[in-house]
Amino acid sequence: MDHEMDVENMGNEEDRVGILISSRSSSTTTAGSGSGIREPLLVKNSRLNTTSQHAIVGANVCPIESLDYEIIENDIFKQDWRSRAKSEIVQYVYLKWTFALLIGLGTGLTAFFSNIGVENIAGVKLNLTNDLMLNQKFRQAFAVFAGCNMILAIAAAALCAYIAPAAAGSGIPEVKAYLNGVDAPSILATRTLFVKIFGSILGVAAGFVVGKEGPMVHTGACIGNLLGQGGSTKYGLTWKGFKQFKNDRDRRDLITCGAAAGVAGAFRAPVGGVLFALEEAASWWRSALLWRTFFTTAVVAVVLKCFTEYCKGGNCGLFGEGGLIMFEVNYAKPSYSIPDLLVVIFLGVVGGLLGSLYNYLVDKVLRTYSIINERGPIFKVILVMIISFLTSCCSFGVPWLSKCIPCPPQAGDQCPTVGRSGHYKNFQCPPNHYNDLASLFFTTNDDAIRNLFIAGTDKRFLLSSLLIFFVAIYFLGIITYGIAIPSGLFIPVILAGASYGRVAGSLLSPFTVLDVGLFALLGAASFLGGTMRMTVSLCVILLELTNNLLMLPLVMLVLLISKSVADCFNKGVYDQIVEMKGLPYLEAHAEPYMRQLAAGDVVSSPLFTFSGVEKVGNILHTLKVTRHNGFPVIDEPPFSDEPELCGLVLRYHLLVVLKHKVFTKSQRGSSSILKRLNSHDFGKPGAGKGINLDELDISEEETEMYVDLHHITNRSTYTVLETTSLAKASILFRELGLRHLLVVPKIPGRPPIVGILTRHDLMAEHVSGLYPHITPTRKRSYYQETHSHL
Amino acid sequence: MDHEMDVENMGNEEDRVGILISSRSSSTTTAGSGSGIREPLLVKNSRLNTTSQHAIVGANVCPIESLDYEIIENDIFKQDWRSRAKSEIVQYVYLKWTFALLIGLGTGLTAFFSNIGVENIAGVKLNLTNDLMLNQKFRQAFAVFAGCNMILAIAAAALCAYIAPAAAGSGIPEVKAYLNGVDAPSILATRTLFVKIFGSILGVAAGFVVGKEGPMVHTGACIGNLLGQGGSTKYGLTWKGFKQFKNDRDRRDLITCGAAAGVAGAFRAPVGGVLFALEEAASWWRSALLWRTFFTTAVVAVVLKCFTEYCKGGNCGLFGEGGLIMFEVNYAKPSYSIPDLLVVIFLGVVGGLLGSLYNYLVDKVLRTYSIINERGPIFKVILVMIISFLTSCCSFGVPWLSKCIPCPPQAGDQCPTVGRSGHYKNFQCPPNHYNDLASLFFTTNDDAIRNLFIAGTDKRFLLSSLLIFFVAIYFLGIITYGIAIPSGLFIPVILAGASYGRVAGSLLSPFTVLDVGLFALLGAASFLGGTMRMTVSLCVILLELTNNLLMLPLVMLVLLISKSVADCFNKGVYDQIVEMKGLPYLEAHAEPYMRQLAAGDVVSSPLFTFSGVEKVGNILHTLKVTRHNGFPVIDEPPFSDEPELCGLVLRYHLLVVLKHKVFTKSQRGSSSILKRLNSHDFGKPGAGKGINLDELDISEEETEMYVDLHHITNRSTYTVLETTSLAKASILFRELGLRHLLVVPKIPGRPPIVGILTRHDLMAEHVSGLYPHITPTRKRSYYQETHSHL
Repeated sequence: MDHEMDVENMGNEEDRVGILISSRSSSTTTAGSGSGIREPLLVKNSRLNTTSQHAIVGANVCPIESLDYEIIENDIFKQDWRSRAKSEIVQYVYLKWTFALLIGLGTGLTAFFSNIGVENIAGVKLNLTNDLMLNQKFRQAFAVFAGCNMILAIAAAALCAYIAPAAAGSGIPEVKAYLNGVDAPSILATRTLFVKIFGSILGVAAGFVVGKEGPMVHTGACIGNLLGQGGSTKYGLTWKGFKQFKNDRDRRDLITCGAAAGVAGAFRAPVGGVLFALEEAASWWRSALLWRTFFTTAVVAVVLKCFTEYCKGGNCGLFGEGGLIMFEVNYAKPSYSIPDLLVVIFLGVVGGLLGSLYNYLVDKVLRTYSIINERGPIFKVILVMIISFLTSCCSFGVPWLSKCIPCPPQAGDQCPTVGRSGHYKNFQCPPNHYNDLASLFFTTNDDAIRNLFIAGTDKRFLLSSLLIFFVAIYFLGIITYGIAIPSGLFIPVILAGASYGRVAGSLLSPFTVLDVGLFALLGAASFLGGTMRMTVSLCVILLELTNNLLMLPLVMLVLLISKSVADCFNKGVYDQIVEMKGLPYLEAHAEPYMRQLAAGDVVSSPLFTFSGVEKVGNILHTLKVTRHNGFPVIDEPPFSDEPELCGLVLRYHLLVVLKHKVFTKSQRGSSSILKRLNSHDFGKPGAGKGINLDELDISEEETEMYVDLHHITNRSTYTVLETTSLAKASILFRELGLRHLLVVPKIPGRPPIVGILTRHDLMAEHVSGLYPHITPTRKRSYYQETHSHL
Repeated sequence: MDHEMDVENMGNEEDRVGILISSRSSSTTTAGSGSGIREPLLVKNSRLNTTSQHAIVGANVCPIESLDYEIIENDIFKQDWRSRAKSEIVQYVYLKWTFALLIGLGTGLTAFFSNIGVENIAGVKLNLTNDLMLNQKFRQAFAVFAGCNMILAIAAAALCAYIAPAAAGSGIPEVKAYLNGVDAPSILATRTLFVKIFGSILGVAAGFVVGKEGPMVHTGACIGNLLGQGGSTKYGLTWKGFKQFKNDRDRRDLITCGAAAGVAGAFRAPVGGVLFALEEAASWWRSALLWRTFFTTAVVAVVLKCFTEYCKGGNCGLFGEGGLIMFEVNYAKPSYSIPDLLVVIFLGVVGGLLGSLYNYLVDKVLRTYSIINERGPIFKVILVMIISFLTSCCSFGVPWLSKCIPCPPQAGDQCPTVGRSGHYKNFQCPPNHYNDLASLFFTTNDDAIRNLFIAGTDKRFLLSSLLIFFVAIYFLGIITYGIAIPSGLFIPVILAGASYGRVAGSLLSPFTVLDVGLFALLGAASFLGGTMRMTVSLCVILLELTNNLLMLPLVMLVLLISKSVADCFNKGVYDQIVEMKGLPYLEAHAEPYMRQLAAGDVVSSPLFTFSGVEKVGNILHTLKVTRHNGFPVIDEPPFSDEPELCGLVLRYHLLVVLKHKVFTKSQRGSSSILKRLNSHDFGKPGAGKGINLDELDISEEETEMYVDLHHITNRSTYTVLETTSLAKASILFRELGLRHLLVVPKIPGRPPIVGILTRHDLMAEHVSGLYPHITPTRKRSYYQETHSHL
């Protein structure tokens, strides 16, 4: 696939040590001696050269950027660290908590308003159609229904296609990748945030089988990222306190809080949100973060609680009990015996199978769609229109397959439903009858789930209707994900799972005493476990959704079984999307083949280095011809007796020095950088921002001057010996959240550095490209089990 | 304190690189050049020599042992790894899950039987006393009550004092330290397990203000450790599959599962258990472990569910509704406004203050007790007897302070209580009256908590009684922890907190509409937050205990506030105990002063090294004079051109080679180790087991032979340059769970290694001993906030 290739290539150079450039690196042949496998070196270099050329040609393409969680301990940092006033530290701590509060508030408000938006828009649409249906004007009704859906869908698609393409889809895979250290282009930009919010409202209101949960997570992450930009000169927010957050570590924390807040807002599940962030989203975790995310989700919970109280007074239009999914279920206290457990296990196994099949099909559909979507925005919109029409036909057409059922006497006024919310949709039926399929199709997704979860004492759904609904929703969900609208996966999966569970419950009722409503819940759990492969967080989210702790052991059981079954076939759906998008995700464990290679075997040895005191012209030239982000600094005589590794200097630090023109005429060292700049000047710019190399105005005379790089060089870089196994190097890289890992020679050689390991050097694709005979087998489940020690 | 000093000294040598021994290390003066601070080197060396001498003298003291989570990638490992059959991997995976299942079953059963034990023993005791009370025989009643308590207490204390001293106390601090990489002597031994179980039953039944929750966690951890011993030759369990678990990584996983199972069993809180393990117990975490602990706690939940169903038939003696704490509360749906929230915030602040005071007092009492306890087992027993008598007096005496209250008419038959369980204890009162203080004191702790949590529609407790109870239980809890019985801290804290909450609720009732029962719950939350400083896990445990999700936002709020308030004053109670016991706990973040030092500044430079092919006599001698666990191996001419670091060899690997006598006559290398031994032979023995150096029978002739150490040398050790900042080195050490970190010279010098960093070199006490002028300030909260970036 073109797109994928492109992304991979871009990624490849961004961090990669490239072709030989300065005269001093010509001695690179000494490097790498000592490692056993020499023969594929040619392959490596030739491959490298092609990608490097590509980099220089296509330099204006926005690349995937690796993030750097290492503290850059250069002299500037140390100077500022020592002189750091206590007040500044206190300020920092308060700001962190204030930001957590703001993320909670922002996400809570967004969650609330998107619910109100959806309920009101969808409500008006359904009411209009309903009125026409009551008057037997079926054709007009369909026209209005499909027309409304189409208009909403086009609006959502246009936003996504033309303004922020990154807002399409769930967003959880991208957030997950970001928290792993991969910044995809404009994934957390402000315009993505706005498109995500409004696109999600429009998309859900358009009747697609999509949820607003994934988008809520993405929204939360965007809000977090917005706060981590270190203020904004455009809007006059230039307070020094904000600038302390201009680094990837603090941004990561904020985005983790945002992701947790997103789930908390989407499901009204504060504890579930924290666990989601921990289990699924975050790649690095620590105790302090647990506490902060917990605070954030508590704020979300309070915000939502306040607003729902407010809306109870009827102040929110059509936002009635329908909004803000929360399916309070009250089955009789479940008491179960061995046969019941067997039935539940069977349910879990089949749910796991169907869940992994879901993942497989989603992957196939996504790959097909991405070919269409790449043709241009207009194709994206057309695809959305087709799916919208299909969905409308399904929602309006399929209910005709069902018979009209007489209202149960005990339902009283509630049957048939008047207005939007309710369980007994009249549809085409005569008075005092209802259409059970319409109660599921001809409503919002949240209402459909609520209907499915209802305790099954009365026979409100025919088995045939449930079966039809299950099949339709299973495939509608699959073909909807991937079109250019913000689309969550939770709701489609819960819908399909709940209908599957209710079908299974009806079929298996001779063998069990459990309620079919409970079966619907367990079915939803089995599908969630089978697709998303989370355990604890799903369990808690389901508990908080249904507000009933008594189901806990059964839900745990089903989740464990369905996850285990599905893990035999493929990866979780989010991991799959991350892989499909070509984002270089670093797993926590090392692959077995990595134990057979040494760190020196995979580095691309010719590399760009700088002297401790370097000519401005050299720096400028190097920055222009390569897109590398880290350059080793090597002290040479007369600064040291023999070439000695000083440390690593970063591209954006060099750009700051070039911009401020802290140059000296002599080649002797100077401390002018320390005097003129401080660590706030070196704050890491957000993605796509920062100093543009082309805009630097450096005169011919200045290029002959020198910069003393010592003070901006990170002298405490992590290093590995070239003979260290690749497995250990990759674990070091992953656990410490590095962007560059220096590989140093074991036996002191002339150049004191062999190369730099970056994220891409550790990717399975790269390694197997270099050493195809060490074929990485693909049985993931074994690896995860056996090789995942730290 | 003597004890503490001792422990620290022991610790110091165990891993520490010691005095100069082999001729080749005499060139150590070259090492360490380049780091700025030279002057304190003298201090360092002199200190080192003292501790080293001490080591050799006191070599028979059982030391605190550091654990090693690094994969030892030596040739043996690589050979076995490559030839590892797929069936073996599958076997390993299955065994892991089987062990998780076994831990769940074991802990569930233990939890259940200890509940039955406590309920029956305490039930008989209370029934006897009650009968005498009914007959107005108050003196006999007291004699029986205090006598029973005393006998039970002595039994518990005797077990602890004479059989397994490690079983005293909560056990959570020790488990926490173990999971951080510190193995205290016999803390997870089998006899500790048995004493913990029976001592806990006896202690709780003896009426002490202690819980069985901490001991349950310890029990779970012990069970986990038992499974990780690699089978047992004594009992014929020598299957090869078991041996795969003979390493610290797998043991760590098993013990983490055990800790989670412990909480799950103690509170019937499976999700809370997982979160407890994650938040409080474990120092390293990964996704796969989340899933496995979740499975374990699910098993516990199922086991408990089955047994309580069984006991409902009256098959478990006096184990009625009283057993297995689970406080189902059903307050009216809480709806609250701003004044209510202010009241709750106030409650949280005061709860946090009282909680941190609790920690402070516990620490003081513990330090006093440990002086008494060190005098010998008999003193331990006497201390227990004194506290037991005090507790009996309090439980029996204090209720006399309260008036007799007429039974409320709606209570009907329930008042006064007949038999053991019930809310209206008759005590000394005339018929149809009850004594409210006796309902709290003269019962089991679980029942008292249940009484306090009851919704407060009726005025069953007088404010004065609640106040008396609060003060008494607050101080009883403090003076009880630290005596030689297994004693959990959860129950005392919940008891004190719940009574505090109920007092506060009564006092603040003019300002709020919230129920006093809800106040009791919130008070318990505030105390738990104030002492234990957990957040998410406490929140979930409380939810699962009370089975009511509607309180979630309020509980979250209170926990956050009380934790924040208490964090201003001191550390969490478990951290405090870890510190008091002198266990070298590694924090996840680096302290600020570490940024001012380099790794080379703290290593103790003279060190023991081996040649690639080393004389048996040298090895034997070195192992005898030092207790170090890792020795750098250095290749020298003719094996290499110049001295070159080969890697690190471990003590227990050397012992295996010595035991199997894989020696050669010539100094040339040999691959006989590879042929004769495999990785199972090198499995790490459990604490206190393994090959004893003194029992090796090596002849004079053999000492002149050679061992080729290359094949057992870990060639992929992690290294840092000596100029790397200590902060970065310590983060590397902590994140990767190392036991040894090699410090290599920056400029190639004669000895290719500067020293080894171990856990003790990174301890604040050690560093501040070397560099007293870089005073580590003690304001923890700032550090945790500002310097905890991975």
